[in-house]
Amino acid sequence: MSGRVTRGGLFLTVEGVEGAGKTTQVARLAERLRAAGRGVLVVREPGGTPLAEEARRLVLDPALEPGAAAELFLILVARADLVQRVVRPALEAGTTVIADRFDLSTRAYQIGGRGLGAAEVAAANRLATGGLQPDLVVVLDVAPEVGRARQAAALKRRDRMELADAGFHDRVAEAFRAAAGPDILHLGADGPPDAVHAALWAALARRFPETFIPQAG
Amino acid sequence: MSGRVTRGGLFLTVEGVEGAGKTTQVARLAERLRAAGRGVLVVREPGGTPLAEEARRLVLDPALEPGAAAELFLILVARADLVQRVVRPALEAGTTVIADRFDLSTRAYQIGGRGLGAAEVAAANRLATGGLQPDLVVVLDVAPEVGRARQAAALKRRDRMELADAGFHDRVAEAFRAAAGPDILHLGADGPPDAVHAALWAALARRFPETFIPQAG
Repeated sequence: MSGRVTRGGLFLTVEGVEGAGKTTQVARLAERLRAAGRGVLVVREPGGTPLAEEARRLVLDPALEPGAAAELFLILVARADLVQRVVRPALEAGTTVIADRFDLSTRAYQIGGRGLGAAEVAAANRLATGGLQPDLVVVLDVAPEVGRARQAAALKRRDRMELADAGFHDRVAEAFRAAAGPDILHLGADGPPDAVHAALWAALARRFPETFIPQAG
Repeated sequence: MSGRVTRGGLFLTVEGVEGAGKTTQVARLAERLRAAGRGVLVVREPGGTPLAEEARRLVLDPALEPGAAAELFLILVARADLVQRVVRPALEAGTTVIADRFDLSTRAYQIGGRGLGAAEVAAANRLATGGLQPDLVVVLDVAPEVGRARQAAALKRRDRMELADAGFHDRVAEAFRAAAGPDILHLGADGPPDAVHAALWAALARRFPETFIPQAG
């Protein structure tokens, strides 16, 4: 069910720890693509459909205290519905889809952070995505102290994820750092947003010049 | 995490198509065990904890129309929470737990009925149960026409499951019929409830004489 054959649009995911600058960089990419006349859709998990929003509410509700497995399945409820109703139709219509977090976050948080079995989580994730894989996973790498400082400055609400122990966040960060593969691009994100954006656009333009026009901007 | 070592209580599950008489037989077993002074807990999926009830509401909501994968994950949210908060503690306390449906229903409905990948569903289910397996799975077998007639007579609400196509129910029934293994017991359930109960108790007494006292009743 994956593959480029049935789609016109590129599927990019932007990943990294809290405070790495994902949301800012995703917004900058989308803005610039739109200015260049490209169709673009930004999604953020968990959410984006009525069922996914219900799952989001449950995963963030401290009174329900989902265990590690229940938390994973709530995230996969949201992913399955979002992929089926939003992401696939958009890709098939030729729209570029940029996800602020996707399945690498599941690997980092649920396997790295919570310690669930890697093979089981990967199998469950395949059911959720129906085999859809990003064309490119961008990991924004920040030094741990930079991430912590940004996160503290930006922190507006304290949900379950953010209340987890420090060891949890170290394991998550290590999982993002260790992610490797032909479709995974690591990008240093310690610098100011403008510099990170310029480096990210240049990297995307080398890889997908038809979408991220090298000479633009 | 499975195994008899850490538990005192027996874990039985009762499975079968709609209309097979599961709920009646589970209630009869529980009643008779209680009358004999045994601690017994009946659970019915999806439900039994605040989070599992939320998942139940979502899986049965026709407006949300969960796809096959989202439906599976909602059921596994409920199972993970029920096992962690209710089933394991009860077993550890020496209580006999009887589940009106458990993971064989997932195999029948989500693999047999909906066509999801068997290996992926089994892997996801292992995360939900943490490896807990029933001591015995009782499958109540009914002739297809008996099941359909009972179901039609008993049908009070029409939820998503019940509105699915006839081919779906045939595939589900076939999956229940085909289930086999050392911890799976098939029992003919076409007869009247009293006769089915007597046969079921006798079968359980042969297998677990300390709990289902052969001479009682």
